[in-house]
Amino acid sequence: MTNISPENQTVFFHHLCEVAARETLPRFRADISVVNKLEQDFDPVTEADKEAERAIRAQINSEFPTHGVIGEEYDNTLPDAPYQWIIDPIDGTRAFISGVPVWGTLVGLYHDGKPIAGVMDQPFTGERYLAVNGECQLFRGGNGASPLKTRNTACLEQATLMTTSPQLLHNSVDERYFDVEKQVKLARYGCDCYAYCLLAAGHIDLVIETGLNIYDIAALIPIIENAGGLVTNWQGGDASKGGQILAAGNAELHARAMAVLNSDDA
Amino acid sequence: MTNISPENQTVFFHHLCEVAARETLPRFRADISVVNKLEQDFDPVTEADKEAERAIRAQINSEFPTHGVIGEEYDNTLPDAPYQWIIDPIDGTRAFISGVPVWGTLVGLYHDGKPIAGVMDQPFTGERYLAVNGECQLFRGGNGASPLKTRNTACLEQATLMTTSPQLLHNSVDERYFDVEKQVKLARYGCDCYAYCLLAAGHIDLVIETGLNIYDIAALIPIIENAGGLVTNWQGGDASKGGQILAAGNAELHARAMAVLNSDDA
Repeated sequence: MTNISPENQTVFFHHLCEVAARETLPRFRADISVVNKLEQDFDPVTEADKEAERAIRAQINSEFPTHGVIGEEYDNTLPDAPYQWIIDPIDGTRAFISGVPVWGTLVGLYHDGKPIAGVMDQPFTGERYLAVNGECQLFRGGNGASPLKTRNTACLEQATLMTTSPQLLHNSVDERYFDVEKQVKLARYGCDCYAYCLLAAGHIDLVIETGLNIYDIAALIPIIENAGGLVTNWQGGDASKGGQILAAGNAELHARAMAVLNSDDA
Repeated sequence: MTNISPENQTVFFHHLCEVAARETLPRFRADISVVNKLEQDFDPVTEADKEAERAIRAQINSEFPTHGVIGEEYDNTLPDAPYQWIIDPIDGTRAFISGVPVWGTLVGLYHDGKPIAGVMDQPFTGERYLAVNGECQLFRGGNGASPLKTRNTACLEQATLMTTSPQLLHNSVDERYFDVEKQVKLARYGCDCYAYCLLAAGHIDLVIETGLNIYDIAALIPIIENAGGLVTNWQGGDASKGGQILAAGNAELHARAMAVLNSDDA
């Protein structure tokens, strides 16, 4: 199969979330072994991370053997295939090992390099943010699906901003984040992928980050875009491969934040 | 009634959580009006905050009319009574208005000035951390109650540390927090009262904060102490009225963090 209908995408994304949650949830808040992936930086990778990605890949390889897979934990496969699945089995491993339920399982789908669908699943809180076929919905427990819509806060002075951590801003360019932070009404740290979903749901207005990998952002782009928001790099260009990320609930606020990030005075 | 059995405390705390959740949960992630309590600082107080405290006070006044009440939103009552209930209807209002489920409803009970019981309820995730009669348990949904125990991480280099925000550290004394942060394995921001409960549950090791009010900490002291941890001020003294707070999972780690906070080199 090379083409996938939106209906099939929806069913398949839910299935992927379920197989991943079987690996992540029993290990969340358990006494798990944590291995440092890099020796210098603290970048924990848990057993849950590896097992969840393995489970997701098995489903994709079985259902769509001609599709490529890009994941955090294992080598990429079929890099020239038109369809590419992009997996971060646990985005927010630091949150995961600290017991904070703002991590998520991310799976995005690109066609010819363009994000077309994605899901963020947080199985502890029971939240699943799914973007398929130009729509974005939150599924939660018995509550069914709620359509998501970003909010229309247009000025920085009224905006709520999130970034995962100021500790991740390593140089004078990255630190232009703080020029935006100074102007907003409220800035919060510590939410990883969860922040982008709060933006899609209209609870916050901006997410600004740097140094993201493709698998950190792939699933989140359609979630935000389908809810009415924008995701670009700090210069307004393509964000689909990661890097510096500026996500906003609407075009006016996006332009204002981008102006600050690129100001000569910064 | 002036004396309360542990059984009655348990039943009553659950009841207080339920009446508060009826006011908070329907307003969480809704389009609520937010009023700034202070004109200069951003200190939002929501309708949920006021209504939840009103509901909790009504229950206490009805059940224990001779007891005093200290709360965030309304005037203290019966300040000389031996039993004092201390209420923060929504600890973490910034989290609340941003849609992040790490806020909580806090109710503590002091007898002759000493914390004897407390609860932290997070109704969105369905977590209720309850300390009564020397025990501490997590109640969650159909899973019943799980006893909580802090972990025994003894050195800073292996410890996970949380604080609500580095933006709340306003002077050179407060900034000694960063001397601890530099030494720990992992530091995270943004969890308000939720961080203390993660410490009680053994997922993290240290919480260091400053500028807390009595209602920010009262309920959390028995939760941590009954789980095997320590809560003091930065000098090792009484934390029951708020101020600078140092909470640790065990005495050895507490001593090491306190030594750094009080170092002459800091």
